[in-house]
Amino acid sequence: MSTVEKYTKILDNLKFDKMFQNDFLLTWEKTRDELEAVYTVADALRQLRENNISTRIFDSGLGISLFRDNSTRTRFSFASACNLLGLEVQDLDEGKSQVAHGETVRETANMISFMADIIGIRDDMYIGKGNAYMREVSQAVQDGYKDGVLEQRPTLVNLQCDIDHPTQSMADMLHLIHEFGGIENLKGKKIAMTWAYSPSYGKPLSVPQGIIGLMSRFGMDVVLAHPEGYEVMSDVEKVAQKNAAESGGSFKRTNSMEEAFKDADIVYPKSWAPFKAMEQRTELYGNGDMDGINKLEKELLAQNAQHKDWACTEQYMQLTKDKKALYMHCLPADITGVSCKEGEVDASVFDRYRTPLYKEASYKPYVIAAMMFLSKVKDPQKTLQDLENKANRRISG
Amino acid sequence: MSTVEKYTKILDNLKFDKMFQNDFLLTWEKTRDELEAVYTVADALRQLRENNISTRIFDSGLGISLFRDNSTRTRFSFASACNLLGLEVQDLDEGKSQVAHGETVRETANMISFMADIIGIRDDMYIGKGNAYMREVSQAVQDGYKDGVLEQRPTLVNLQCDIDHPTQSMADMLHLIHEFGGIENLKGKKIAMTWAYSPSYGKPLSVPQGIIGLMSRFGMDVVLAHPEGYEVMSDVEKVAQKNAAESGGSFKRTNSMEEAFKDADIVYPKSWAPFKAMEQRTELYGNGDMDGINKLEKELLAQNAQHKDWACTEQYMQLTKDKKALYMHCLPADITGVSCKEGEVDASVFDRYRTPLYKEASYKPYVIAAMMFLSKVKDPQKTLQDLENKANRRISG
Amino acid sequence: MSTVEKYTKILDNLKFDKMFQNDFLLTWEKTRDELEAVYTVADALRQLRENNISTRIFDSGLGISLFRDNSTRTRFSFASACNLLGLEVQDLDEGKSQVAHGETVRETANMISFMADIIGIRDDMYIGKGNAYMREVSQAVQDGYKDGVLEQRPTLVNLQCDIDHPTQSMADMLHLIHEFGGIENLKGKKIAMTWAYSPSYGKPLSVPQGIIGLMSRFGMDVVLAHPEGYEVMSDVEKVAQKNAAESGGSFKRTNSMEEAFKDADIVYPKSWAPFKAMEQRTELYGNGDMDGINKLEKELLAQNAQHKDWACTEQYMQLTKDKKALYMHCLPADITGVSCKEGEVDASVFDRYRTPLYKEASYKPYVIAAMMFLSKVKDPQKTLQDLENKANRRISG
Repeated sequence: MSTVEKYTKILDNLKFDKMFQNDFLLTWEKTRDELEAVYTVADALRQLRENNISTRIFDSGLGISLFRDNSTRTRFSFASACNLLGLEVQDLDEGKSQVAHGETVRETANMISFMADIIGIRDDMYIGKGNAYMREVSQAVQDGYKDGVLEQRPTLVNLQCDIDHPTQSMADMLHLIHEFGGIENLKGKKIAMTWAYSPSYGKPLSVPQGIIGLMSRFGMDVVLAHPEGYEVMSDVEKVAQKNAAESGGSFKRTNSMEEAFKDADIVYPKSWAPFKAMEQRTELYGNGDMDGINKLEKELLAQNAQHKDWACTEQYMQLTKDKKALYMHCLPADITGVSCKEGEVDASVFDRYRTPLYKEASYKPYVIAAMMFLSKVKDPQKTLQDLENKANRRISG
Repeated sequence: MSTVEKYTKILDNLKFDKMFQNDFLLTWEKTRDELEAVYTVADALRQLRENNISTRIFDSGLGISLFRDNSTRTRFSFASACNLLGLEVQDLDEGKSQVAHGETVRETANMISFMADIIGIRDDMYIGKGNAYMREVSQAVQDGYKDGVLEQRPTLVNLQCDIDHPTQSMADMLHLIHEFGGIENLKGKKIAMTWAYSPSYGKPLSVPQGIIGLMSRFGMDVVLAHPEGYEVMSDVEKVAQKNAAESGGSFKRTNSMEEAFKDADIVYPKSWAPFKAMEQRTELYGNGDMDGINKLEKELLAQNAQHKDWACTEQYMQLTKDKKALYMHCLPADITGVSCKEGEVDASVFDRYRTPLYKEASYKPYVIAAMMFLSKVKDPQKTLQDLENKANRRISG
Repeated sequence: MSTVEKYTKILDNLKFDKMFQNDFLLTWEKTRDELEAVYTVADALRQLRENNISTRIFDSGLGISLFRDNSTRTRFSFASACNLLGLEVQDLDEGKSQVAHGETVRETANMISFMADIIGIRDDMYIGKGNAYMREVSQAVQDGYKDGVLEQRPTLVNLQCDIDHPTQSMADMLHLIHEFGGIENLKGKKIAMTWAYSPSYGKPLSVPQGIIGLMSRFGMDVVLAHPEGYEVMSDVEKVAQKNAAESGGSFKRTNSMEEAFKDADIVYPKSWAPFKAMEQRTELYGNGDMDGINKLEKELLAQNAQHKDWACTEQYMQLTKDKKALYMHCLPADITGVSCKEGEVDASVFDRYRTPLYKEASYKPYVIAAMMFLSKVKDPQKTLQDLENKANRRISG
């Protein structure tokens, strides 16, 4: 059997035609088939690359990256995905300035898109703004395409917003699929998405929200655990609730780390800021109230410090399934005694899981590439087969 | 008939062999045939891309961008043009420091050019410097090529200087050709290049100068209008005068916006700084006289504020031909009530012309690519035909 | 005979198989055959490019550049080399912050390498750190490859460290090979690597160290000259001593510029900071002692100023072989009366050697590309021959 036939056969049984010419903004806007299509194409692309077969579907074209804050990892993942498919990255650096609106967004979106096939946006700093901004850009380029300004319709990939972090959660999911030997094996597995102490402040909510919003799709028992006061967006909890009901899994929230870790197959302990505080901060920034921001940050650091017991210690790991739940993290983690005095995870736990953690991260470029691929290619099965048949070598010699 | 045959036939009747291995610095250094060759190649490249046919003529190679100030639009246009032809962009960031001279320019020009096919320079901040700097770089790489240091002679594209903005004016012209259904239909049309009020200060002169220097080549009736004290470089006015005489059109200067708009087929209302003030500013910067600069800026803002009536209002638009002259702008415009309290144009006027304005901008990457193409390809007709015959798809699948 | 046959025949007689999948960190870790393989591949690649034949061996893939300080020249050389072979450059900008250690280096090295074929690092600011950092990154990606995290093992190219500057010295050497008509003609030639006065402070030691460490491999008479107190790393002097003994050349240190220039075939006068001072500075930075650093810099400028007579003047040039030794410099040079009042070299000397100096620099992209090529291609002779046979044109038309 050919390298990609295994994957094209899976795709033949999935319905995902609406992904063509479409954005990827929230996992819960996608059907289960569409999510599986992403995993399948990601694996197929990786398989081809590992066999030194070129996966370029673009002879030329631009992938625009638009980041509101610095990000080495996401930047490299996006650049890698673009390169994998043959797009050149062009960065639009708008700085950390307040989000632009209306005319400016519409105009800029069109001005950068004359040769753009993909726009990747990371905008996670202000509650209520990031995802809304992406939709504004999307509408602008859709109009530009319709009006004949743009000769192609660039599609958007959400590289992290205030609500979801789909490229992270999808990469995490693909890691689980590989670790547990198939998507069907995830049914009934318990995953603990828990808050963890960090000496730094203001980590985004998009990871825990993305995880509970996605993992609840596959019949898993999803537990969200955090100290009181660290609630995530209630809308996303509702999404997780609904997903669990539909997929035959469960979703539960608790304020006990012990309860979450108890018999868990997978643990994902990670710091984040309380949703209410992030909302407050957005308002303070909006008013330019720097004194208020400084005061808020101090309060939140003090609040964090009351929960140093929320850490992924060896003791807590003992509570998990067979004492060896799969430990996950989006990286970088705050490792106790390594990157900080007291942090999210014991150094010995982190050390034991380093290789799986790196592998977890390694899926992100492929997941992003698969999202792009499915939004740009009309007949993915045929295109994958063509790539294999042509068999252009990625490296010669 | 093939996609490109229409264009190669036009090229067959034009003489433009001197563009090969040559720079594009000022439109008035080019013959009318050479300008038409740019429009024709730009249209041919666009035609190919719209048919998903690759326009890569470079398998590898670098396009160097050298910008003295930040520029999202020009940067993306240049990057898009490079990508369209297969060049990778490498930015040389010299910052806003005073322009280097002599040995440093010569050396740097060579050091960045070992693999450079194209150098795009934007240097519009200092009167008397930008264009001169480009010529210094051009001479340096010409010498480097002659001396065997460089194995190819990178050609230069002026992405905006103190005198001209050829990629803007040429894109504007291509827009007019398409709007009016052919270059021959522009003869006798009246275009009003007028000053307009902006609450910001120090906008470059290169756009009005570029427009009067180019539009006067095609038999149009070109009117330059501005309040007293907002004169542009007199040398460029002389160029426009001479062009008009040769092309059978006319060139006129007036201090009345009403006169300019009266029966105009096209209006291009835009703010700029007085030439004399820009000269003065260049001198103040040269002397490091920051107090002088601040004082000058205040004076100029006050001077601007006396001419808030110079705005492209609905009332003024009523004066134009059939009350619906084509409104043009290089973008971004200062829109009254949108991007500022009082600005260059009424929001309702801007709204009505948004799609044409975006289209106007969309020609720039193609115009830049055409300039590159003609400077690098010995037999453009054959190369265009080869691209069509090979028919490599830009996107597979 | 074909274009590349001349080079593949030379390669047939060299043993360099250990370069495959290996880093290039110090020239003295490489065998003489391996160094010659680099020169030969560099020449072959240049030959192909000059014949408009594509030298792309990568269809896609990333070259990561990691610079601790700004560098136009090295950045462009690396970008040019990557482009020549088909890699897209992605910059990792870690800023000038203190060098990261342990977990962070290991993690970052893997996170940026999912699609990375090459990592180029320039880290020359802290004695005892730069080269050590490169080895840490190398070990991390080696482990990542072994553990299945990375599907390819990115190889490292040292773009300048605290100990060596192999891409500079190898380019310099290739220049000498061409100037003297072959590597065998260098035997017995005298090269003077001398200190020279500069009004700026703290230039790295890697150039003089790289030169004495490499030129001593080829039977040359290498003289290192500097004022007392400007010693380089004694370990590298020992390397030069040992090399000279093995290659049938000589290595000598002197405090007399006159002695060094006397009958020299080649002179390389260049400023650097004393090794001891650089060590001290590293410690002061480690302690965050900014007062100490400012004090040290003043002392060193004063120390420099005592040796203004160490300049490559016309008088000194008179002492050299036939009064016309080949003058070399890594550029930019401090030219007396041009870039500074008093500097490393007389303007008239520099002027006379400008073209050779530019040519010297022109070898660097090819040397870097050859290092990459030999670390990535299993059968270089076959791959070069394949490139020639395929004969894809670099520029069409």
